[in-house]
Amino acid sequence: MTDTQYPDNRITRENSALVLVDHQLGLILGVHDQDQEQLRRNVVSLAGFATAYDIPVVITTSADDGPNGDLLPELSRLLPDATLIRRPGEIDAFDNQDFEAAIRATGRSHLIIAGISTDVCVTFAALSAISRGYHAHAVLDASGTWSALASQSAAARMQTAGVVLNSTVAVAAELQRDWRNPGGAELAAVFSDSALPFYGSLVSFATR
Amino acid sequence: MTDTQYPDNRITRENSALVLVDHQLGLILGVHDQDQEQLRRNVVSLAGFATAYDIPVVITTSADDGPNGDLLPELSRLLPDATLIRRPGEIDAFDNQDFEAAIRATGRSHLIIAGISTDVCVTFAALSAISRGYHAHAVLDASGTWSALASQSAAARMQTAGVVLNSTVAVAAELQRDWRNPGGAELAAVFSDSALPFYGSLVSFATR
Amino acid sequence: MTDTQYPDNRITRENSALVLVDHQLGLILGVHDQDQEQLRRNVVSLAGFATAYDIPVVITTSADDGPNGDLLPELSRLLPDATLIRRPGEIDAFDNQDFEAAIRATGRSHLIIAGISTDVCVTFAALSAISRGYHAHAVLDASGTWSALASQSAAARMQTAGVVLNSTVAVAAELQRDWRNPGGAELAAVFSDSALPFYGSLVSFATR
Amino acid sequence: MTDTQYPDNRITRENSALVLVDHQLGLILGVHDQDQEQLRRNVVSLAGFATAYDIPVVITTSADDGPNGDLLPELSRLLPDATLIRRPGEIDAFDNQDFEAAIRATGRSHLIIAGISTDVCVTFAALSAISRGYHAHAVLDASGTWSALASQSAAARMQTAGVVLNSTVAVAAELQRDWRNPGGAELAAVFSDSALPFYGSLVSFATR
Amino acid sequence: MTDTQYPDNRITRENSALVLVDHQLGLILGVHDQDQEQLRRNVVSLAGFATAYDIPVVITTSADDGPNGDLLPELSRLLPDATLIRRPGEIDAFDNQDFEAAIRATGRSHLIIAGISTDVCVTFAALSAISRGYHAHAVLDASGTWSALASQSAAARMQTAGVVLNSTVAVAAELQRDWRNPGGAELAAVFSDSALPFYGSLVSFATR
Amino acid sequence: MTDTQYPDNRITRENSALVLVDHQLGLILGVHDQDQEQLRRNVVSLAGFATAYDIPVVITTSADDGPNGDLLPELSRLLPDATLIRRPGEIDAFDNQDFEAAIRATGRSHLIIAGISTDVCVTFAALSAISRGYHAHAVLDASGTWSALASQSAAARMQTAGVVLNSTVAVAAELQRDWRNPGGAELAAVFSDSALPFYGSLVSFATR
Amino acid sequence: MTDTQYPDNRITRENSALVLVDHQLGLILGVHDQDQEQLRRNVVSLAGFATAYDIPVVITTSADDGPNGDLLPELSRLLPDATLIRRPGEIDAFDNQDFEAAIRATGRSHLIIAGISTDVCVTFAALSAISRGYHAHAVLDASGTWSALASQSAAARMQTAGVVLNSTVAVAAELQRDWRNPGGAELAAVFSDSALPFYGSLVSFATR
Amino acid sequence: MTDTQYPDNRITRENSALVLVDHQLGLILGVHDQDQEQLRRNVVSLAGFATAYDIPVVITTSADDGPNGDLLPELSRLLPDATLIRRPGEIDAFDNQDFEAAIRATGRSHLIIAGISTDVCVTFAALSAISRGYHAHAVLDASGTWSALASQSAAARMQTAGVVLNSTVAVAAELQRDWRNPGGAELAAVFSDSALPFYGSLVSFATR
Repeated sequence: MTDTQYPDNRITRENSALVLVDHQLGLILGVHDQDQEQLRRNVVSLAGFATAYDIPVVITTSADDGPNGDLLPELSRLLPDATLIRRPGEIDAFDNQDFEAAIRATGRSHLIIAGISTDVCVTFAALSAISRGYHAHAVLDASGTWSALASQSAAARMQTAGVVLNSTVAVAAELQRDWRNPGGAELAAVFSDSALPFYGSLVSFATR
Repeated sequence: MTDTQYPDNRITRENSALVLVDHQLGLILGVHDQDQEQLRRNVVSLAGFATAYDIPVVITTSADDGPNGDLLPELSRLLPDATLIRRPGEIDAFDNQDFEAAIRATGRSHLIIAGISTDVCVTFAALSAISRGYHAHAVLDASGTWSALASQSAAARMQTAGVVLNSTVAVAAELQRDWRNPGGAELAAVFSDSALPFYGSLVSFATR
Repeated sequence: MTDTQYPDNRITRENSALVLVDHQLGLILGVHDQDQEQLRRNVVSLAGFATAYDIPVVITTSADDGPNGDLLPELSRLLPDATLIRRPGEIDAFDNQDFEAAIRATGRSHLIIAGISTDVCVTFAALSAISRGYHAHAVLDASGTWSALASQSAAARMQTAGVVLNSTVAVAAELQRDWRNPGGAELAAVFSDSALPFYGSLVSFATR
Repeated sequence: MTDTQYPDNRITRENSALVLVDHQLGLILGVHDQDQEQLRRNVVSLAGFATAYDIPVVITTSADDGPNGDLLPELSRLLPDATLIRRPGEIDAFDNQDFEAAIRATGRSHLIIAGISTDVCVTFAALSAISRGYHAHAVLDASGTWSALASQSAAARMQTAGVVLNSTVAVAAELQRDWRNPGGAELAAVFSDSALPFYGSLVSFATR
Repeated sequence: MTDTQYPDNRITRENSALVLVDHQLGLILGVHDQDQEQLRRNVVSLAGFATAYDIPVVITTSADDGPNGDLLPELSRLLPDATLIRRPGEIDAFDNQDFEAAIRATGRSHLIIAGISTDVCVTFAALSAISRGYHAHAVLDASGTWSALASQSAAARMQTAGVVLNSTVAVAAELQRDWRNPGGAELAAVFSDSALPFYGSLVSFATR
Repeated sequence: MTDTQYPDNRITRENSALVLVDHQLGLILGVHDQDQEQLRRNVVSLAGFATAYDIPVVITTSADDGPNGDLLPELSRLLPDATLIRRPGEIDAFDNQDFEAAIRATGRSHLIIAGISTDVCVTFAALSAISRGYHAHAVLDASGTWSALASQSAAARMQTAGVVLNSTVAVAAELQRDWRNPGGAELAAVFSDSALPFYGSLVSFATR
Repeated sequence: MTDTQYPDNRITRENSALVLVDHQLGLILGVHDQDQEQLRRNVVSLAGFATAYDIPVVITTSADDGPNGDLLPELSRLLPDATLIRRPGEIDAFDNQDFEAAIRATGRSHLIIAGISTDVCVTFAALSAISRGYHAHAVLDASGTWSALASQSAAARMQTAGVVLNSTVAVAAELQRDWRNPGGAELAAVFSDSALPFYGSLVSFATR
Repeated sequence: MTDTQYPDNRITRENSALVLVDHQLGLILGVHDQDQEQLRRNVVSLAGFATAYDIPVVITTSADDGPNGDLLPELSRLLPDATLIRRPGEIDAFDNQDFEAAIRATGRSHLIIAGISTDVCVTFAALSAISRGYHAHAVLDASGTWSALASQSAAARMQTAGVVLNSTVAVAAELQRDWRNPGGAELAAVFSDSALPFYGSLVSFATR
């Protein structure tokens, strides 16, 4: 079994970078297309997966000294070595040259993108990634936006443009590929701690 | 950074016109795929963005002396200089030659369309725009219709036909592009006042 | 303004037939993706539109002497002259040669299809219509099925296959095209009576 | 009427195999995009249909001695002769060579896939099936996942990749094709017992 | 079996009057605690029951030449002989002396009250009825109001004050008491036509 | 520990009878305040508990040769020895003298009542039970009615009248009182099979 | 018609004061039992009613220089003359002696209380008001809290304690009592502008 | 300000004990009347409050070596000194003499009770507490049960029996009484960490 069997819309540990856009303390207070705490657990899980699989991470914030607020503190804590690009004004992260350079510096072809809001920061970054030749995966459940209709419009726009719509757990499973590969124990821990809390209960049952 | 980097499914201040179709006092009373007041705040926000970015606006109403009712009065107030086409009977706005001429007169290639109902006035105008060579963006959350299934069918039909599905806040962000560009302060004000009221609370926190 | 401007994914009075599949008294009791009474009002509205625009109607039922139940009695009442094909066992209506002949006899190129259930009778008829060279419009809100996920899967399958997803009111508006065309008064009456009851209240306000 | 009329995105008794992925006692406890019992009734129904139509079945589980839990016991009971592949670690079932061989051994071109979770096990198996030249039908309502957004992202990803989204009842109806074909009585029994319990009440009414 | 067994919080044909408060074409457009058409079917059903059981009916409207709109036209049609009190300004119907006299003239001790809105017209009339010594039954599902919280507050206030909370079908069943009593056929017809449309399907099944 | 400690609003195996009112195949098709299958599992569970605890059961149906339909067949199967009173017309079961006699013959003071519909058959039976000196427990989740507002009104009316509102699982737990008492194994089986299917999964985990 | 007819659980312009507790910019961001903007429109409406009826208003905030945030700015603007008590730490407003004095200074016996959160600031103030001999009305839809269960528990606790649960529109209607009394025009304006926006559309229809 | 002003349905640090009933890893997997993670955060918050206010805590589990599962591990971690009563079979905790003794040993008159499930363990403990002369507060949002109707029945039963329905945040606020009292900083920390995560964002804004 070799990775060459994998068609190119799949992500692997070798071809992917994680891009977190504007997960900020102010912006999350306006999220209404899913539970805010579930979103928070999902982005924390993405951070955990990136660490487990040693995948490059680029974090960016927008005007974080203003109403958008600081980066979620748990992300700083979990990803101390991630590249952080504080954008002074550009809304599409790719309009910021430092961001674009940071992405290029990862050397990866597939960008796993999550952010707030889905219809602005995620969609713009994903569309720009596609137009620059990257593969883009948008993680819907680690992103959030202001209403169901805004969420639906963003999903359709990205789907049409060739962005793969994805979910937190599926991203992890695709990177892990086989539970016996390195990272399996870390994956189970992140599932139990944040991505799938019910899984923690099952682990407890299965191991007593 | 120049706008020539932008692929043509993006909207800019230079290439876009705003088209508001049948936001009338009677029709809004039948909207059930989203909160009627949220819809109202969103179309008011579009009006605010168009003013901030000096984008041409074409407003049209259908049989506004009958049960459909008058144009929402806040739109008349906010957009006193917009071209207003009162259609006597045509349901697809492009079937009205004055409307088509008004659109042509804007000289813009990208039409940002919202209206009531999503499945009739918005869909018909967007499909006709596409067939006449325009790019069309349908703003789902500044539009409304009678039921969830009617909303879903309209979204799918437009997606298939090449209409970009979009949201109020994403339209503004795409036109603003960088918070430091002209219009940033106006954008923040419209966010706080109508598009994203929670943002107003954040501004208040951030500035005290 | 001539109809030749209309691209061929649009329906007109001249190119369309209405196809009602298995709106039966038993089957409607299992509908859970929308309100059963709203579905009933919508299919009654389609019957009213077909009468107003003098469009051929083909009705078909499946095993109506068994648990599926009789055709909704209001449809028999409203459409006494429609062709009725009582299928003894074929689930895809196009597998019944009388049905296929009845469709061919309408001489129409565009089939407006509604039925119960969306994922079986509507989807199968629409896919078969497409594969025989017809244009197919599936009226989601005049159809119904057993669950939200069944509804979603049917919509996606039909969208991919080239079926236009449509709604009751949009079908009527597309056929009417201009309120001043013949049929406008009948359209308003059907809106008030069944498709959009709120519209009846508005008519009452506007005319006193 | 011959089956050669059927375009190749349709499933038949002759061209299809049923693939059940990770319907395990632990995993089902985390399903939140539909009622867990409805999911359970739907997968039981698929098992009933496969028996009625004598279609090959491949069942696979993932790490079933750990937190994922045992295969749902009703599936073992209903499908004693199905091929069962217990995957020790591979998340994409096609990464397991025994599974791939079992699928190949069915000699079928169309795979009807359901599982838990929709965004991981179903999506991965369906994408891999497509890339190996199979037709893939994903049965959304006999599958389940952790949240609405995860469900939505999986559906969009599969739709884009050419997987047919399908439902439990539509799968059965497509295989039965005509109620008078062999299997009609078994189909009605499965509808009444698990897929569509309201249908059982109708049968009782219709037969007294 | 005599009615003297019935404790006095029960309604009978002999002790009850029906009171319909402000079911007006304008007001119903603001109802959001239940489906507007279901409300409409329920109040029409109450009218049908009152006719079947020959119970006195008092209808009242509030400022019906203004924005509240005319009485629902089907109520005028169904109840041509009901006493109609058009209140020029009083919000609590009992503040209008003609209304109070009309109620007194019925000679009944139990008032079955429905109206729009639940929290204003129904609650005020019911509280005033209680304070004047009447028994009051508020029919929640033949009434409506602006939001779920307004509905909840009204129900709690009335419950505390001794108003019996009731439903359309339960009112009919309590008045009918035995299907073999006079009115049974009329009751079944109203159930089928408006109160419980699914019941019409069952009748059709049971009688073929 | 003796039962004399229990205040009299508690049910015990010694003081209780189970009363099932109008769980009929037709009526259940109109239930919309909860999932129809969940209701069905709950009433089946009550039957299982009554058997486990050897509690007298009185079942009654209303006009079961008409549209209301036959008693749910699983209840006949599970409770072959229950007293069955087929009411020819009385809506309040206590208006039927055979029913009243059957209740009296149980010699029990506490009636555990469930039925369809909550607002009619359950409420009337419970109110009449109270007025005849019985304690009444209404099992909301083993009952069902036509809408949320009908359900809410029935609950409030019964609460005010002194009926204890209860749930399927709480009834069982109150009768079992201690898992080590006789019936514990049967209780666990009913939980796993119908009342709480997730519990079956837990049992499987706990016992492997 | 004199007010002496009114039993004492009714509010009048003469007997009432409006008490707004902790409607602060930070706290409103955590409200999840209703739409935050609807809550905002409702409390603004209460301010409008108090002005129209010249009712004393006491506003209080809690630690408004900390995370709770400033008073909603529209309340300061609309009620410049209201007594404002900035509580440095007391959670139950009546624990603050200035607040208690301000309430006493109004000379009113009935307190109309709204606030954030329903289960803390509103419930505590209402319970303390009752224990000090005031009548208390809690306006549920001009209040908000963190979850549906928190909202439900607060409503039940207040109902039991003798607090009248009320709604924004019902408060206004009770104070207005007759549309012809002074304040009717102001009431209609507040309805149209904030409390019931659909009413504004009706006014527009009725007056053209 | 003295506590003697507080009527006895209020809880204080001096008069209260916290009672956690059956928050076990298996049982929480069946909770469907609220988000399972929100429930988990709420019971963790109660543990934090009890620590901050030095309130006695009695924890009890039911058959925790069987399918119900172990106590939630975070509760063991947070409350190492709490009395833990592992009930071998009694469902009503007060039927266990060790539990009753542990409660008596706290010397407190007011019991703050939360647990799984609301309708069984919480209701039984609360009713038994009341019948033994304790005041009982049931914390609805730190408890959970199997369905909305089960939740509703439990709330009504407890309300009628004199149990105060309460919420996590209100319990804390009632115990804290004044933010300047000891425990204020701990309270804010628990709000930010678990009870009200949005509050943490506000704290971050307010303190930068």
